[in-house]
Amino acid sequence: MHEALPPIPTHGGQVQEIMRYFPDAPQPFVDLSTGINPHRYPLTLPSPDIFARLPEAGEEDDLRAAAAIAYGAADPAMVVSAPGSQSLISLLPRLVTASRACIWEPTYSGHATAWQQAGVEVQQVSDWRSFERQSVQRGTVCILCNPNNPDGRLLPAAQLRHLADRCASYGNYLVVDEAFADFHEETLIPALPHPALIVLRSFGKIYGLPGLRLGFLLTSPDFAERARQFVGAWPVGSLALSVGRQALRDREWLQQAHHIASSAKRRLVGILEQAYLQHEGQVSLFTLVITEDAAKLWTHLCRHGIVTRIFNAHHDRLRIGLPGGEEEWARLEQALYVWRDRS
Amino acid sequence: MHEALPPIPTHGGQVQEIMRYFPDAPQPFVDLSTGINPHRYPLTLPSPDIFARLPEAGEEDDLRAAAAIAYGAADPAMVVSAPGSQSLISLLPRLVTASRACIWEPTYSGHATAWQQAGVEVQQVSDWRSFERQSVQRGTVCILCNPNNPDGRLLPAAQLRHLADRCASYGNYLVVDEAFADFHEETLIPALPHPALIVLRSFGKIYGLPGLRLGFLLTSPDFAERARQFVGAWPVGSLALSVGRQALRDREWLQQAHHIASSAKRRLVGILEQAYLQHEGQVSLFTLVITEDAAKLWTHLCRHGIVTRIFNAHHDRLRIGLPGGEEEWARLEQALYVWRDRS
Repeated sequence: MHEALPPIPTHGGQVQEIMRYFPDAPQPFVDLSTGINPHRYPLTLPSPDIFARLPEAGEEDDLRAAAAIAYGAADPAMVVSAPGSQSLISLLPRLVTASRACIWEPTYSGHATAWQQAGVEVQQVSDWRSFERQSVQRGTVCILCNPNNPDGRLLPAAQLRHLADRCASYGNYLVVDEAFADFHEETLIPALPHPALIVLRSFGKIYGLPGLRLGFLLTSPDFAERARQFVGAWPVGSLALSVGRQALRDREWLQQAHHIASSAKRRLVGILEQAYLQHEGQVSLFTLVITEDAAKLWTHLCRHGIVTRIFNAHHDRLRIGLPGGEEEWARLEQALYVWRDRS
Repeated sequence: MHEALPPIPTHGGQVQEIMRYFPDAPQPFVDLSTGINPHRYPLTLPSPDIFARLPEAGEEDDLRAAAAIAYGAADPAMVVSAPGSQSLISLLPRLVTASRACIWEPTYSGHATAWQQAGVEVQQVSDWRSFERQSVQRGTVCILCNPNNPDGRLLPAAQLRHLADRCASYGNYLVVDEAFADFHEETLIPALPHPALIVLRSFGKIYGLPGLRLGFLLTSPDFAERARQFVGAWPVGSLALSVGRQALRDREWLQQAHHIASSAKRRLVGILEQAYLQHEGQVSLFTLVITEDAAKLWTHLCRHGIVTRIFNAHHDRLRIGLPGGEEEWARLEQALYVWRDRS
């Protein structure tokens, strides 16, 4: 019980790194530190021979066609595929000329990092009014995640569509990171092509395959064409091409996954409430616990071999992802039972 | 025999696309259009479960450690890993401030494209003296491939090391793309850390696994750290991490691969000479045929189901990679036999 506390990592994951600080914790560790679907798409690995040649242009075209249909874009020409949406986030400052990036915080830290690295002034706002006000300042790119991570806030598509129109009339862009949107109706993609709109999608989170590295940018065909040129040849490896093309066309699996994730979210919320823990957010794949004892609860769970996500800048918040199997559920329930009894 | 000629693609590969124009050609097609090792590293595919989590920082550190040893860099801090060296080529204009990019042509077209896209003036030179002269113009980044693609020209490391020193004294950078250098001694990597030197390596070509998307940038630790920040989190997928870490440590396989490729290159050159075809280049994995009939020879080979690499800008050149198995060798020999008889 006298472990040194580990440094808080920049992102979720990094379970092995964190758990070195808790040598007495029961194994295997339960990783609830990300918002990744614990029930992964049942991929079949292809023959190793497919890696012996470069992907053909037709294969990437087919991936983009599958993504366009899955995400509701009218034309595959609006789709840019890349090895993970993080790589597209890094690319955005090269594609969008702006003197200021207005980012609705708290959110995924990769956005602020990308613009700061590009030497663009980053303005962080935390409410809709300020965000809206910034959108009419010339030379401003507005960025938000919807639904948001980590707080799970979900804005109506109509509200964002209206904001995009305002951005467009001032020559500004609006970036909507829909990394967690697959299970939600409030997507901006049907509004494309739109002169101001850039939408990001993450394949790995919903399909439970983040190690594949696959993400998409959806925008107007001209902008998408320019983005594809910047991304360069063969951005997506043979495995992501093969699995992505199959999974994005599997509507039945997606529907089932949505159902399973929604039930699991209800179950998670029920367990938290039994432990008298307040929570918020409308995303199926994670919830945000609000408690002044966040750091203590995080350490408590680590000691029980359960890694959740703690934040440097928000000491009263803890993000908890969905447990995968019954054993993981039992361990979380047991750990929270002990927590409640001690509090 | 009255096929319409296909448009010449930007890169090698794209075999299916090209062969649509030759519906009568025998199948399976033989792809000799790239310089990729036809004898791939014997990878074992891991459990699909590894794709269900994000790669951990320790795994990428280990990949960089393996690459440092394999390529002869003194410190893994000098290594940047990425999903293919093309993605690093695209990134370079963000890392290097220059008003002019001097590129030794002909070479891989991705270099000129990347700098042009970044709005940097591209100067193409075709001889050492001009290249050397440009290296002392302030604000110039010098770029060359060694050994070069497609002509297989190999410059001594000592000569390039001297040039790098000159670049450094004018505050310029020298980019040496060693995509085909694994089988050669003339690598610049042991000269690192060097204030002017940026070296690129491609995993896929030598290990015969281009569909994996894995490449490296090697440079001074400070520059590498900045590059890693720009590349962002999780650049390399779980499969490339797993296979790369294993293959880069397998010195025995590399030695054997070098031996096999060298023998194959001698055999290829012998077959070309029997067909009275002139050739050049010191790279094991491909040769450049020099003939005024390049376009005719390319079409002739396509009709025999063999795809080689023809160039828009160089009508008297044809790049031919190594055949993989005895059937591919027999088909190339037979096609060239017919060619000789007709010429």
